[in-house]
Amino acid sequence: MPSEHTQRLWYTFLVSLIEAIPNISEGKRTSVIEAFKVAVCGAADVELLNQSSDAAHNRTVFTLVGTPAGLTNALIALYDVAVRNIDLRTHRGEHPRIGAVDVVPLVPLAPTDMPLCVATATTLAETIASQFDLPVYLYADTATHQNRRRLEQIRSGEFEGLSSKMSQPTWRPDFGPTRPHPSAGASVIGARRPLIAFNVNLETGDLDIAKQVARKVRESNGGLPAVKAIAVRTRDSSVVQISINLVDYRRTPLHVVFDAVRDEAGHLGTNVRNSELIGLAPAEALHAAATHRLHLEDVTTDQVLEYRLRNCLEAERPQTNETNET
Amino acid sequence: MPSEHTQRLWYTFLVSLIEAIPNISEGKRTSVIEAFKVAVCGAADVELLNQSSDAAHNRTVFTLVGTPAGLTNALIALYDVAVRNIDLRTHRGEHPRIGAVDVVPLVPLAPTDMPLCVATATTLAETIASQFDLPVYLYADTATHQNRRRLEQIRSGEFEGLSSKMSQPTWRPDFGPTRPHPSAGASVIGARRPLIAFNVNLETGDLDIAKQVARKVRESNGGLPAVKAIAVRTRDSSVVQISINLVDYRRTPLHVVFDAVRDEAGHLGTNVRNSELIGLAPAEALHAAATHRLHLEDVTTDQVLEYRLRNCLEAERPQTNETNET
Repeated sequence: MPSEHTQRLWYTFLVSLIEAIPNISEGKRTSVIEAFKVAVCGAADVELLNQSSDAAHNRTVFTLVGTPAGLTNALIALYDVAVRNIDLRTHRGEHPRIGAVDVVPLVPLAPTDMPLCVATATTLAETIASQFDLPVYLYADTATHQNRRRLEQIRSGEFEGLSSKMSQPTWRPDFGPTRPHPSAGASVIGARRPLIAFNVNLETGDLDIAKQVARKVRESNGGLPAVKAIAVRTRDSSVVQISINLVDYRRTPLHVVFDAVRDEAGHLGTNVRNSELIGLAPAEALHAAATHRLHLEDVTTDQVLEYRLRNCLEAERPQTNETNET
Repeated sequence: MPSEHTQRLWYTFLVSLIEAIPNISEGKRTSVIEAFKVAVCGAADVELLNQSSDAAHNRTVFTLVGTPAGLTNALIALYDVAVRNIDLRTHRGEHPRIGAVDVVPLVPLAPTDMPLCVATATTLAETIASQFDLPVYLYADTATHQNRRRLEQIRSGEFEGLSSKMSQPTWRPDFGPTRPHPSAGASVIGARRPLIAFNVNLETGDLDIAKQVARKVRESNGGLPAVKAIAVRTRDSSVVQISINLVDYRRTPLHVVFDAVRDEAGHLGTNVRNSELIGLAPAEALHAAATHRLHLEDVTTDQVLEYRLRNCLEAERPQTNETNET
């Protein structure tokens, strides 16, 4: 049994690390993008795991992991740089956006840390709204209204339509002023489950086949639960792609999605070339595919050393909801 | 960038946790087994992940994870209980053994922590030998002689043959006296890579088929690298089993072993029923099977969030070999 002091450290450092994926509306000016990076890397207890900037989208996405307090500090510093340097009145890019810091999802690394992510997101939203005089909407698992659960609902109309949208009582923000920030618009913050971006490439250049496959597998057309799918062309004119967002890998494991795509493509006379994982996925999302491949029918994640350790530590953890542990 | 103080904590608690799997020659007396458990659980910075006692083998195996210093303290306490309570002169069991605490492998959770495990094992061996006046042999990646790498080499002759074995100069122990401890024999300590115990069950009761498959796949008969395999009967007379120890899952991934067994069984006219994982496996051992199942040809472990975090932290870690960080 760990001593009281070290026990505390284990909880903080092994169990309660969470992930933040800020999406910022700037993907071109390298000096500004570098300033974002300096801001997030300057915070204690935060690691920058990934960074991708897209000039056509005019958007930068960071993947950070850290303690709730560390991430909160890193994100406040990031908002500060973004609000000072981005003016949406002159911003152009292919990707839809409503604000300078467009959206910040917080994601638990351990499924039981969702309440911690919800609490952290709510506190962060309140702080950002007051510190930058910026309207903030809560979304996903933190949403306060049913019509704010999906990011697309909040973002429809984009920055250009925001002023008229916010004049409606139903679009009063969760925190901050009831009109857009002149240059920085509004921001969306919330806790959500890990999302897996997974593409399957087909050995055909026929986009109609990909469209039929996407329609067959996605939830919105009666397909697999938790699956969003669209058909897209690739740089290779002989290959089309099913671009998939899996929003809950526990409801539909990755290999079930893969098999559905492969089978439907097969019915339409084509084959899978390969698959791609975009960005990062938690190790647990790959577990079911591995056990299925190995015919390990009775093996749960509790036989995986890292998960067992996490479960043992969580079983000992006192039940508190504090979010500022450092 | 983490502050200096918190950086230190991250290294200690996220990166440098290691695993210890002490094997003790007592699997029957519940009060003694309970005393083992109290001993290991009393140490700070150690988690007991698994415990299994086998009365026929007269043996108990614990799986512990902790800091090097925490594990060292837990293991010293465990040796103390075992040496005081076990007398090998009257010990009987099916499993071969040379000592009261027969063998203690230390295993890195992160592959780059092997030097830390080697240093921890060496220090532990020296401490145990001096504190309990017990001969200790180093084995596996800590072995000081080529003929001490494999546990079977050190253990051949068992406790009953130990006195005459130790009279040979080649079997002088690495630490401690040059004769067996009267009641506790000797002990084997060492760092090794994770070992996966993986069984594949065949839909036949014919042990000869299982023997042919085992011979075909194991390294010692020219089969797959890092694979040890034997054929065993199961409780179900219509099922025989290939019992596999995979000593390096990076050299031969689990799905390659599985396919070799399935294909060879197929040639001999039988099918795989299912597989079993015995004890715990690190998440990384399942990675290749998952990516193969999903046709994710270019996905490395660097796209798995937990490994990326570990790699980022390790890249920042100062190069030291200290083993007593608390």
